[in-house]
Amino acid sequence: MLVLSSPSGAGKSTISRELLDREPDLTMSVSATTRPPRPGEVDGKDYYFITKDTFKDMVAKDEFLEHATVFDNSYGTPRGPVEAALSNGKDVLFDVDWQGTQQLHGRARNDLVRIFILPPTKDELERRLRTRAQDPEDVIKKRMAKAADEMKHYEEYDYIVVNVDVQDSVAEVQAILTAERLKKDRREGLYDFVRELCGTG
Amino acid sequence: MLVLSSPSGAGKSTISRELLDREPDLTMSVSATTRPPRPGEVDGKDYYFITKDTFKDMVAKDEFLEHATVFDNSYGTPRGPVEAALSNGKDVLFDVDWQGTQQLHGRARNDLVRIFILPPTKDELERRLRTRAQDPEDVIKKRMAKAADEMKHYEEYDYIVVNVDVQDSVAEVQAILTAERLKKDRREGLYDFVRELCGTG
Repeated sequence: MLVLSSPSGAGKSTISRELLDREPDLTMSVSATTRPPRPGEVDGKDYYFITKDTFKDMVAKDEFLEHATVFDNSYGTPRGPVEAALSNGKDVLFDVDWQGTQQLHGRARNDLVRIFILPPTKDELERRLRTRAQDPEDVIKKRMAKAADEMKHYEEYDYIVVNVDVQDSVAEVQAILTAERLKKDRREGLYDFVRELCGTG
Repeated sequence: MLVLSSPSGAGKSTISRELLDREPDLTMSVSATTRPPRPGEVDGKDYYFITKDTFKDMVAKDEFLEHATVFDNSYGTPRGPVEAALSNGKDVLFDVDWQGTQQLHGRARNDLVRIFILPPTKDELERRLRTRAQDPEDVIKKRMAKAADEMKHYEEYDYIVVNVDVQDSVAEVQAILTAERLKKDRREGLYDFVRELCGTG
């Protein structure tokens, strides 16, 4: 279970997309939400679009790995598809904020690898938040403040990637994924393998 | 500080050599020994060749990060060159066995990354130990038993690399090195960097 978090404007979406292209054994976790689909959004791909009643019901049945309500809309990571992917030997990528990461960490401490992506400079962050739309100055300021709030949580992550160049950043996340898969505690059947090598199997 | 250990016959020397070729910021730790140089061995490159008195003196002054005596010869990792390399921003590669690894771990727990290299199969291990020389059967058996003893310590390592293909194994060790360098706790100046990004620096 791999978590990528970042303030908006750090380039996380591009990195996630490239990563999923290059890593066949990595699959994206699809969130459920109560907000209505936007034009072009596909149910089951962008989100699972569910009703508020279904959402409440799933919370009650502990069917979310993490969930949050922002203003009037609720978002959550359904447990079922994640557990299915993991038991098929896949790794799962989560695109959640620091609060979602904390909840996932509480539920899957040993299985969770947390990566925080930072922008290269403050100017570059501002440039990226600005080019998104022709927004008034106070909206940009609010976005910068929100990004700063998110970035303050970098200490709750295992790895820090500074996104200077997207290709380099994707390669760094791939290296983290490769290394984590090589960790002794994640290698299944290792005990039997060594016993056989030692001739005692 | 990166430790590579393996039973002899697993391919560690080839992997180390390739790794040092590819990673300019990685430098090999040179051991000191009291045994006389073999033909072609260069002082300061293959080993630091020192007298038994010097060795004893260095042990007394706590100038070794780890040391051991095997039959009549003593071997040790001098602390000075390692600390000099680390303070120059280099990573240091150690080629030591499980006992040396334990000593290093005792002295530099948080700085040490331990990789154990395993051969792909028992047959391949035997083949490699056999082709080294035309040795009698009981010598081969002793080598296999020694390899088995070493392999039993795989649990004391952080990462396991199964050396099926040397190029793949080198790439895996490189991924581990890259990932470990990205760990939050190893990134110097991160606190100030984030403060600056947040506009509070």
